[in-house]
Amino acid sequence: MRFKFSLLAITFQVILIILFAIFVTYDTPHHDTHGNSTQSEEDEFIKLYPLFQDVHVMIFIGFGFLMTFLKRYGFSSVGINLLIAALGLQWGTLMQGLWHLHDGHINIDIIKMINADFSTATVLISFGAVLGKTSAVQMLIMAIFEIAIFACNEHLVVSLGAFDVGASMIIHAFGAYFGLSAARVLYRPALKDGHENEGSVYHSDLFAMIGTIFLWMFWPSFNSAIAEAGIDQHRAIINTYFSLAACVLTAYAFSSLVEHKGKLDMVHIQNATLAGGVAVGTCADMNIHPYGAMTIGFIAGIISTLGFKFVTPFLARKLKIQDTCGVHNLHGLPGVLGGLAGIVAVLLGAKPGASAGIQAAALAATIGVAIIGGAITGFILKIPIWGQPPDQNCYDDSLYWEVPLDEEEEHQNHYLEDQGKMKVEA
Amino acid sequence: MRFKFSLLAITFQVILIILFAIFVTYDTPHHDTHGNSTQSEEDEFIKLYPLFQDVHVMIFIGFGFLMTFLKRYGFSSVGINLLIAALGLQWGTLMQGLWHLHDGHINIDIIKMINADFSTATVLISFGAVLGKTSAVQMLIMAIFEIAIFACNEHLVVSLGAFDVGASMIIHAFGAYFGLSAARVLYRPALKDGHENEGSVYHSDLFAMIGTIFLWMFWPSFNSAIAEAGIDQHRAIINTYFSLAACVLTAYAFSSLVEHKGKLDMVHIQNATLAGGVAVGTCADMNIHPYGAMTIGFIAGIISTLGFKFVTPFLARKLKIQDTCGVHNLHGLPGVLGGLAGIVAVLLGAKPGASAGIQAAALAATIGVAIIGGAITGFILKIPIWGQPPDQNCYDDSLYWEVPLDEEEEHQNHYLEDQGKMKVEA
Amino acid sequence: MRFKFSLLAITFQVILIILFAIFVTYDTPHHDTHGNSTQSEEDEFIKLYPLFQDVHVMIFIGFGFLMTFLKRYGFSSVGINLLIAALGLQWGTLMQGLWHLHDGHINIDIIKMINADFSTATVLISFGAVLGKTSAVQMLIMAIFEIAIFACNEHLVVSLGAFDVGASMIIHAFGAYFGLSAARVLYRPALKDGHENEGSVYHSDLFAMIGTIFLWMFWPSFNSAIAEAGIDQHRAIINTYFSLAACVLTAYAFSSLVEHKGKLDMVHIQNATLAGGVAVGTCADMNIHPYGAMTIGFIAGIISTLGFKFVTPFLARKLKIQDTCGVHNLHGLPGVLGGLAGIVAVLLGAKPGASAGIQAAALAATIGVAIIGGAITGFILKIPIWGQPPDQNCYDDSLYWEVPLDEEEEHQNHYLEDQGKMKVEA
Repeated sequence: MRFKFSLLAITFQVILIILFAIFVTYDTPHHDTHGNSTQSEEDEFIKLYPLFQDVHVMIFIGFGFLMTFLKRYGFSSVGINLLIAALGLQWGTLMQGLWHLHDGHINIDIIKMINADFSTATVLISFGAVLGKTSAVQMLIMAIFEIAIFACNEHLVVSLGAFDVGASMIIHAFGAYFGLSAARVLYRPALKDGHENEGSVYHSDLFAMIGTIFLWMFWPSFNSAIAEAGIDQHRAIINTYFSLAACVLTAYAFSSLVEHKGKLDMVHIQNATLAGGVAVGTCADMNIHPYGAMTIGFIAGIISTLGFKFVTPFLARKLKIQDTCGVHNLHGLPGVLGGLAGIVAVLLGAKPGASAGIQAAALAATIGVAIIGGAITGFILKIPIWGQPPDQNCYDDSLYWEVPLDEEEEHQNHYLEDQGKMKVEA
Repeated sequence: MRFKFSLLAITFQVILIILFAIFVTYDTPHHDTHGNSTQSEEDEFIKLYPLFQDVHVMIFIGFGFLMTFLKRYGFSSVGINLLIAALGLQWGTLMQGLWHLHDGHINIDIIKMINADFSTATVLISFGAVLGKTSAVQMLIMAIFEIAIFACNEHLVVSLGAFDVGASMIIHAFGAYFGLSAARVLYRPALKDGHENEGSVYHSDLFAMIGTIFLWMFWPSFNSAIAEAGIDQHRAIINTYFSLAACVLTAYAFSSLVEHKGKLDMVHIQNATLAGGVAVGTCADMNIHPYGAMTIGFIAGIISTLGFKFVTPFLARKLKIQDTCGVHNLHGLPGVLGGLAGIVAVLLGAKPGASAGIQAAALAATIGVAIIGGAITGFILKIPIWGQPPDQNCYDDSLYWEVPLDEEEEHQNHYLEDQGKMKVEA
Repeated sequence: MRFKFSLLAITFQVILIILFAIFVTYDTPHHDTHGNSTQSEEDEFIKLYPLFQDVHVMIFIGFGFLMTFLKRYGFSSVGINLLIAALGLQWGTLMQGLWHLHDGHINIDIIKMINADFSTATVLISFGAVLGKTSAVQMLIMAIFEIAIFACNEHLVVSLGAFDVGASMIIHAFGAYFGLSAARVLYRPALKDGHENEGSVYHSDLFAMIGTIFLWMFWPSFNSAIAEAGIDQHRAIINTYFSLAACVLTAYAFSSLVEHKGKLDMVHIQNATLAGGVAVGTCADMNIHPYGAMTIGFIAGIISTLGFKFVTPFLARKLKIQDTCGVHNLHGLPGVLGGLAGIVAVLLGAKPGASAGIQAAALAATIGVAIIGGAITGFILKIPIWGQPPDQNCYDDSLYWEVPLDEEEEHQNHYLEDQGKMKVEA
């Protein structure tokens, strides 16, 4: 694997540098007839920069740490997350920019940087579905394919005239169904009764909460970063803020309802509390009123928790889809809910100029493209040259990382030595 | 407990949605006589949004992780913190907004969102006083009562004409004395000699430092977020920045002075380093000069550390107040110091238009309302239907959460099995 | 030690308050001829405040947690980091401000606060070189000396007319060579074959990744915070963004190339992924094109990883420089690369008005001042009154901190007791 991984990463990076040399340049402010740059353009960059950084934190800390819940897969979760996001943001800049060339160039501004981060989110969501069962090489390949397909589907949806400011459909539903489709192709019968590493320990669950809370806090920035400045952007922030708050209450309530002895389950709390951010995405900038946003969050928290309890086992057993992080419950179902909420909101007149039929077409197209794209990518990943881990080494960092011996393991080793001596003595 | 907790959370959320439908709407920019919205209003939202997000991080990461220091109570600390803050920000929007209706409506803007987050801070502070000894149901009840009382007291203080831009009095002192008063009512004699779970482990102390550092860094945003734009807001940021820096030096110096063999104590470092932010709150936007701010921080670091060493044991033994997180030392004493510093600053002319007498009245009123409100709430929480944990299950996540078995525990189990076998063999 | 540390910290803080009373005041906006303050000045503070906070996070979370990788030195890493940064930002305000007095005063504005944070970065970098082998008292002394020398060197470089917007030379190379020079003087022969505490455990490596990721995300703010508003600042953000992304790919590729069985090494991932931010610093605001920035990052990731593998062992064995965190690989080599890249960029005309010769002089001067300054400081730190830890207590928090007994240790103790009993029984 040594040379395959390294060679692939270096090759990709060299190609990216060459493509950037050909296509990518800075966005220079336009000048008015007097030769002065317009103040407002210069301002936009620095005004949106804090929102960009919030999204950046969601991508690298949020997604990265959310997946550290597995007891022996934290290095890979946060580490491979960084790797594929770093690749993805460069590739996404090209794939999205090629649809919008100016004089043959992609002019980088803050909106393009936000969109580059967005495009990586799709791969990170799909990563969650196959977490622990794929190699770094496979993830690099997936990033290349998924982002290219994502950029096409996004262009399609925008061309149709659909609205999806917070990307419930084109990022969340897309990433989830792409990943689930790939996971189906990569199905491993040997893991159908679970794996000893497929669980958390106390502190790994706390690390995961770092990811959850940063995602939860900055979701209003995710849903509003590319909204139109002014009231639309304010609404996107306000709606997401209240949707997420309402979602927390129902996620906790239903976690306790469905669990043994009414206890709370960390898996639900880490994930379902975020469903309100996903589900309010499509209509975040629409005039749905704060109580409308809260209603969407209310339903999302319920659907997501019930998804973990009932849908994930069903997918695993009946459809042979092993969804490690439960992305179907955090991004799939709430993403679809978001698309449907958008249709309802448009029907109720919350977005002048929008069409419910086109919203529905965008949702259907997105899911279709995602499933087909994920399946094709899955088959490519299945080619046995990418170093896919064997079943018994799944969910285990030590296959790809130098892992330090823990003190408890050292103790254990000493203990075994001592045991040995004692046996001899005895 | 299963149904009680779930039913309560769902009921609260449904009521909130209904109240929001009746009362809450977006703030739409005012229009000038030509029908154009004013630029400055649209700008304010996005200008203050980064400060809002800093406060948001303090509430959810800061308070949440600060309390994860307990070895077996991390899930509850960060998890119940999220739950009550999500409830609290919705309820706080209503409770504060009802004092300022426009045409019967609460118009949400960025200032209202910041204030909603502020109102949750009071409950999170009080949560620290009763941490590990209350159920999630009790905390939901406390949030409802405390935020309602907080909003009344805040309205009273503002009506009096007192200044408290960083809320030393109306949030920090209020939250602390409310919580201590409730803790007094909920006194548990069985815990007076401590509890085996009431301590930290190495990594739980590091998780807590995540909370500490985020609180420390973003405190300038907390103290300046609702200050008047311009020089007042700049001063609030600068004063808080330097007060916190000075406070760190004295917190470390006095921690070493009072501890065994001159060692540093994590409890002091996690908490007393923040006292400078609390204590400079009331006069943050006043013309107290940077060295004035540093002097306040200098004293706060000392008072807070000495509070942990001498006052907390006194409260526990003599006044029967078991203050789990030592909120009296981080929010109570420094909050009072902040109120007193405000009086001195006003006497020295640092805030034109302010009155020292009114500042003193605000401080006294706040402490009085907090103690009475906390006691009443404490008695309500004592009604034996809210699922208060039994003494032996205090400070233990496993009462309310599915807790994974740690590897060390697994090892331990294997070890015990092996021991059993060995004994048999021997 | 008790009194020495406490007395020193209190004395420093008292002196700082006195010096602030004499020299430091708020920056009040200038007024135009009509007596109105200019809008743009008021705006600059709040526009740059988010970038300041990003830098603040890098200093306190980034540097603090990056160093928590050691298994038993996390309290000191994040705790002493906080202590010396809190001292350093006050001292840096004075040391930098004294070169720019207005009417005998230092007028604090947002740029001065950003620079104050920057000046602490030099000490935190040097701290990494001597981590685990110095006392808190020694670090306070080092902070005082290093920041004073840094401010002189910075003034020298600016006076020469050199450009270094992201401070590859004056912060990163300076801090690294200062620290390495001090580490050389403080060489400990007994540690030349390593120390049992000089390694990580699984979760300490995850804590360190919190530091890495926050540094990685916010580096564009570090490199652009004091750039000229407008296109220069935008370029600094864009260049850093893409340099860091490219750097990740090569850091991973080369980590796998040089390690046993092609595995990834956490030390490389935690550090070398950041080298792109360091190396693009000097020419961040220059017109080097995005692909130029990526090329710099590409090289930085390679150099840094190879540095860890080959240069660090060489320094330790041949030059007697024990560089605990490998700051030479993260800040030293990439800092020099940044200085050289600046020279090349200036030669290629990327910065009108700049001179390659002056850039080279600035780089040489900085390294010279750092090595001499570090050596002098090292000899001062070697005076045996500062409580330097004995060899066997290096890398161990329990020398200076109250450290809780871990559960595993408790288990171990029980186990040893049980063993004792069993032996007796046997």
